[in-house]
Amino acid sequence: MTGATLTGHAAALYEAIADLPITSPHGHCDAAWFAEDTAFPDPASLLIIPDHYLFRMLYSQGVSLTGLGIGVPPERRDPRAIFRIFAQHWHLFLGTPTRGWLEHTLHKTLGVETVLRPERADAVYDEIAARLALPAWRPRAAFDRLGIETLATTDAALDPLASHAALPVEWQAKVIPTFRPDDVLMPNRAEFAANIQSLGQITGQDVATYSGYLDALRARRAAFKAQGATATDHDVPELMTVWLARGEVEALYAKALKGDLSTPDATRFYGNMLCEMAQMSVEDGLVMQIHAGSRRSTNAQLLQKFGRDMGADIPVAMDWVPGLEALLNRCGNDPRFRLIVFTLDESAYARELAPMAGHWPCLRLGPVRGHRRTHPT
Amino acid sequence: MTGATLTGHAAALYEAIADLPITSPHGHCDAAWFAEDTAFPDPASLLIIPDHYLFRMLYSQGVSLTGLGIGVPPERRDPRAIFRIFAQHWHLFLGTPTRGWLEHTLHKTLGVETVLRPERADAVYDEIAARLALPAWRPRAAFDRLGIETLATTDAALDPLASHAALPVEWQAKVIPTFRPDDVLMPNRAEFAANIQSLGQITGQDVATYSGYLDALRARRAAFKAQGATATDHDVPELMTVWLARGEVEALYAKALKGDLSTPDATRFYGNMLCEMAQMSVEDGLVMQIHAGSRRSTNAQLLQKFGRDMGADIPVAMDWVPGLEALLNRCGNDPRFRLIVFTLDESAYARELAPMAGHWPCLRLGPVRGHRRTHPT
Amino acid sequence: MTGATLTGHAAALYEAIADLPITSPHGHCDAAWFAEDTAFPDPASLLIIPDHYLFRMLYSQGVSLTGLGIGVPPERRDPRAIFRIFAQHWHLFLGTPTRGWLEHTLHKTLGVETVLRPERADAVYDEIAARLALPAWRPRAAFDRLGIETLATTDAALDPLASHAALPVEWQAKVIPTFRPDDVLMPNRAEFAANIQSLGQITGQDVATYSGYLDALRARRAAFKAQGATATDHDVPELMTVWLARGEVEALYAKALKGDLSTPDATRFYGNMLCEMAQMSVEDGLVMQIHAGSRRSTNAQLLQKFGRDMGADIPVAMDWVPGLEALLNRCGNDPRFRLIVFTLDESAYARELAPMAGHWPCLRLGPVRGHRRTHPT
Repeated sequence: MTGATLTGHAAALYEAIADLPITSPHGHCDAAWFAEDTAFPDPASLLIIPDHYLFRMLYSQGVSLTGLGIGVPPERRDPRAIFRIFAQHWHLFLGTPTRGWLEHTLHKTLGVETVLRPERADAVYDEIAARLALPAWRPRAAFDRLGIETLATTDAALDPLASHAALPVEWQAKVIPTFRPDDVLMPNRAEFAANIQSLGQITGQDVATYSGYLDALRARRAAFKAQGATATDHDVPELMTVWLARGEVEALYAKALKGDLSTPDATRFYGNMLCEMAQMSVEDGLVMQIHAGSRRSTNAQLLQKFGRDMGADIPVAMDWVPGLEALLNRCGNDPRFRLIVFTLDESAYARELAPMAGHWPCLRLGPVRGHRRTHPT
Repeated sequence: MTGATLTGHAAALYEAIADLPITSPHGHCDAAWFAEDTAFPDPASLLIIPDHYLFRMLYSQGVSLTGLGIGVPPERRDPRAIFRIFAQHWHLFLGTPTRGWLEHTLHKTLGVETVLRPERADAVYDEIAARLALPAWRPRAAFDRLGIETLATTDAALDPLASHAALPVEWQAKVIPTFRPDDVLMPNRAEFAANIQSLGQITGQDVATYSGYLDALRARRAAFKAQGATATDHDVPELMTVWLARGEVEALYAKALKGDLSTPDATRFYGNMLCEMAQMSVEDGLVMQIHAGSRRSTNAQLLQKFGRDMGADIPVAMDWVPGLEALLNRCGNDPRFRLIVFTLDESAYARELAPMAGHWPCLRLGPVRGHRRTHPT
Repeated sequence: MTGATLTGHAAALYEAIADLPITSPHGHCDAAWFAEDTAFPDPASLLIIPDHYLFRMLYSQGVSLTGLGIGVPPERRDPRAIFRIFAQHWHLFLGTPTRGWLEHTLHKTLGVETVLRPERADAVYDEIAARLALPAWRPRAAFDRLGIETLATTDAALDPLASHAALPVEWQAKVIPTFRPDDVLMPNRAEFAANIQSLGQITGQDVATYSGYLDALRARRAAFKAQGATATDHDVPELMTVWLARGEVEALYAKALKGDLSTPDATRFYGNMLCEMAQMSVEDGLVMQIHAGSRRSTNAQLLQKFGRDMGADIPVAMDWVPGLEALLNRCGNDPRFRLIVFTLDESAYARELAPMAGHWPCLRLGPVRGHRRTHPT
C-alpha cells in the first residue's frame, strides 16, 4: 500500500533495526507539545501548514499559500478545506520522498486505512482527526508508543527553555534542547544588537565588551547543558571560518553593536565566532553541528509577506575545504572535539567531505539531506 | 542490430509513447528546408558536416576537419570521400550516445539495411543517397511520415522569417520560429551596434534611446508571435541577472552603442536585459528558455579558422541560485510567466535546480543535455 | 576470502586482462629498491608507515600517528607493535577500497593464508615477514614474478637519478623516471631560489636569466629522457595557466629569485611555466601529466610536526575549462602533444573533462582517483 516491498539485503538490514529505540538528534519539534501534552489540534495544522517541503511544492504548481492556511491566524483557518486542497494535488507528489514519508505517516504511524485520493479527502481527514482525539495520540503517549528514546529540539540562544523545564522530571532526559545561537552570533541578522542586550540581561554579563559577550555565551551554553543539551547547531549560509586577532575582533564587535558592520565584516565576525564556538565545545563537550550550503529566503516576495522558512531556501555549492580550514586547524586535532556537518550536495560528499572525515579526528558527516530535492514529476 | 533490446518497465514505457506525435520544442532545423522542399543534397552534408558533436570527436582523434568538409565550400567537397573517412573511424563512437543516435537514424529512421563498417562505407552511402532522392524523403514528406506535429526552429531576432512565411499555409502551424535575441542583447557580441541599427530599421523604432530599443524588441517578439512562435531562447554563457535602475541601464545602453562597454558592464547590461525579456514574456506569453553553462569557442585556433560552433563549447559549473535571483524575484511569482532552463551539469540538477523548480511557480527544467559528453572510449 | 566473486561481464572482462603484463605509468616506488635489491625490511615499514591513505584514516579514528611509527626513526620503531595496532583497527576499513586493496596484497600477491583479525596480528605479521625474507621477494624477483613490464617512478627535477643509473642495464628499460619539476617551477615552494641555484650547477646553465633557466629545464628533461623517461608530472593545487609576455615573465622570474613574489604573482608565474612545459613537451615528446584539484597539507599541526604528505591533502572543486585554456590554446592542437589530466572530482569528469577530451586532440583523462575517498563506515 505504501510503496515497494523490501526484499533481499534491504529487507534484512531494515528488519535488523526496525525495532530499535529511536534517537532523534536534530529536528524542529516544539518542547511545549510534551510539556503541555494537549491533543494536536487537527490534521492540517499537524501535517500540512508547518511542512515547507510540502507546501512549497504545491506553491510551485500554482496553489495559493493563503488557501493552505499559511500566514492565516489559526482561528480563521478551515483545516478541512486545507486538507481537501492538499488531497486534490496529491498526485503531484508521485515519486517524491515527501509522498513516501507522508504515506508512512498516514498508514504505518497513524494507522489510517483509507488510501488518500481527492475524493476521499474528508474520510482520511476524519480518520486522522479521530486518532488525534484519542489519549493514545497525546504527544507524550505517542512519543513512548513510537519507541522514541531521546528527541533533541532546536532552540534559540535566548530561549528561556521554560517548556523543557516544565517537562515531568523523568521526561527531561527524553526531550533535550539544542543550542542554536545564530541570532546572537550573526551581526547581519535583524535585531542583533537588541538580542545581545537580552543576552546580557539573561546571563547577568556585561556584554558591552567582547570578553563579557564570550562569558555570556558560555553561560547560555551551560544553561542548555544543565537542561540536558548535548549539542549546538549552526546555520552557515556562506561557509567561512577565520581566527581573528583579538584587537580586530573586538573592533568588529563594537561596530556590530552599533549596527554598522559591512556585509564582508559581518561574515568575518561570524566566521570567527564559529571558531569560538568550536573552542567552547572543546571546553564544555557540546557536539558542534553545522548546517551549511543553503541560500535562505531567495523569494523576496514570500519573505516580505510570510517571513522566513517558506520553502525558498535553496542549496548552493560550497567550498568546504577552505571554508572549514581555520576552525579545523584551531580545534580539529583535539580528541575532545566533535563536529558534525550536514550537506545538501552529494557531489561535495564524495569529493571533499568523505576525505576530510577520513582525516580529521573530530569530524562526522550527517546524511545528505536529499528530501530538499522534492520536485514535481 | 542497433543496440540492446528493451525489456520490462523500459519496454512498457517506450511502447506507451512510441507512436505519439512528436513535438520538438527546441532545435536547429532550417525552415528553408520545408519552405523549398528540395531533396537533401547528400549523406555527408546531411549527417556529418553539420553535426559538431560528431566531428569534434573525430577531430579529438586526429582527423582533419578540412578532410571532413568543414570550412570547405559545398562545390569543392567530395561527400563520398567524407563519408568514407567517417566510416573508417566509426569504432571510436562505440558506447557513445552519438553512435546510438546515428544507428537509430540509419536503421530505424532511414531504413538502411547495411551495417556501417569501414569497408561498407560506399554501400551505406549509396543506400542513404538512394532514399534522399525519393519524393518520400523530401523534407515535408519526411516530416509528416515521421509523425512530427510541431517543430520549433531557432532564429535570430533580425531574421525576417521569410522561410517561415513562405511555408504553405497549413504548414505555418507546424514549423514555428523561436525568438533568439542574443545578437541584439549582448553588447560584447561582434556587430552589436550594427545589429541595433538593423533592429531599428526592421521595426521602425528609434533605437537611439533605451525606451525605443525596448519597443523595437517588443515589435520583433510580436512579429515572431504572429508567425507562430511560442517561445524565446537565450544563450547565457555566464549566468548573472540583475535589475538596474533606469538611469544606469540607459547610460550603459548609450555606451554599448558606441562600443565602449567594459566586459563586466556588458555582463551587467545583458543580465538586466534578461530581466526585461522575462517581463516581456509576462506580457506577451512567450515562454522564456535559458541555455546556460557552456563556455563558447574555447579553441581559439578553430574559432579563427572556422568560426563559431566548432565543438569547442564546453560545459562549466554555474551558480544557478544567485544567478537567477534577480530575474525570479522580478517575475517568478507571476502565474503568466514560464521559464525553462537547460543544464549541462547533472550535479546542479540534483543540488539546486530541482529544489528551485519545486518552489518557483514559473520554473520548468529541460533535460540534462548529456549528449555533450560524448567521449572516445 | 577477499571479497565478492566476479560473475558475468565483470568476470569476462577481468579474465581477458588478468594475465597481461603490467605497465605502471604513475606511482611513487623508489628506484633504489630495484638498484640495491635488498629485502624489504618488515611488514609495517612496507605496508603501513608509507601509506597515508591508510594511516590518515586510523588517525581520524583517534589512533596516534607516532604509535604507528610515523615521524619515528626506523631504529626506534617496533614494527610488530605497529602491525598489532593496525590489526586492532582493521574493522574500520570494512567497505573501503583500502581494505579491498590490502586484502588483495596479503592473500593474492603475498599468498598469506591467515585472515587478518586483531588476535591474529602476530601470525599474519610472521607470514609476511617470512615471505619478505625469501629471495623470491627481493624487489627485482618480485617485480618479474608479478608480471610487471614497465614501472615509472616520480622524481624531482634535481634528482641525479643515481639509482636509475645504477640499475642493471636490462632493467633500465623497466624502471624509468618521471620528470616532476614542481620544486623548480613553483616560486612559493620553500627553497625555490636555492633549488634554482642547484639547477644551474647540475646543468651548467646560467640560471640568472629566464632564458638560461629555460635551457636548464630543457637539459634536465633531456637527462630524464636519456634515462628512459617518457613523461613529466605536475602538481597543480590551483589550476591556472597563462601565457605571459616575455618582459613580464622575466620580471617575475627576477623577483622570484629574490623571494619577493606575491602569492598571486607566484600563481601566474607557475601558470606560465606550465605553458612552457607544454611547449617543451611538443619539442621533446615527453607526455605531460597534470594532477590538479588537491589542497595540500590542510592540517597545519601535522604539517609542522611531520611534514608533507600526511593524508591532509583534500580534493576541492576546480574550474578546468578556464584553468587549462591558455595551455590548450598554446599547444592543444599540435599532434605531437599529449596531456593526461587526473581528477579527484567525478562531477567534473562528466561535466567538462569528457567533453574537453572529446574535442582537444592532445587530451587524455586519467581515472578518477576514488581511493582518496576512503572514509570510515
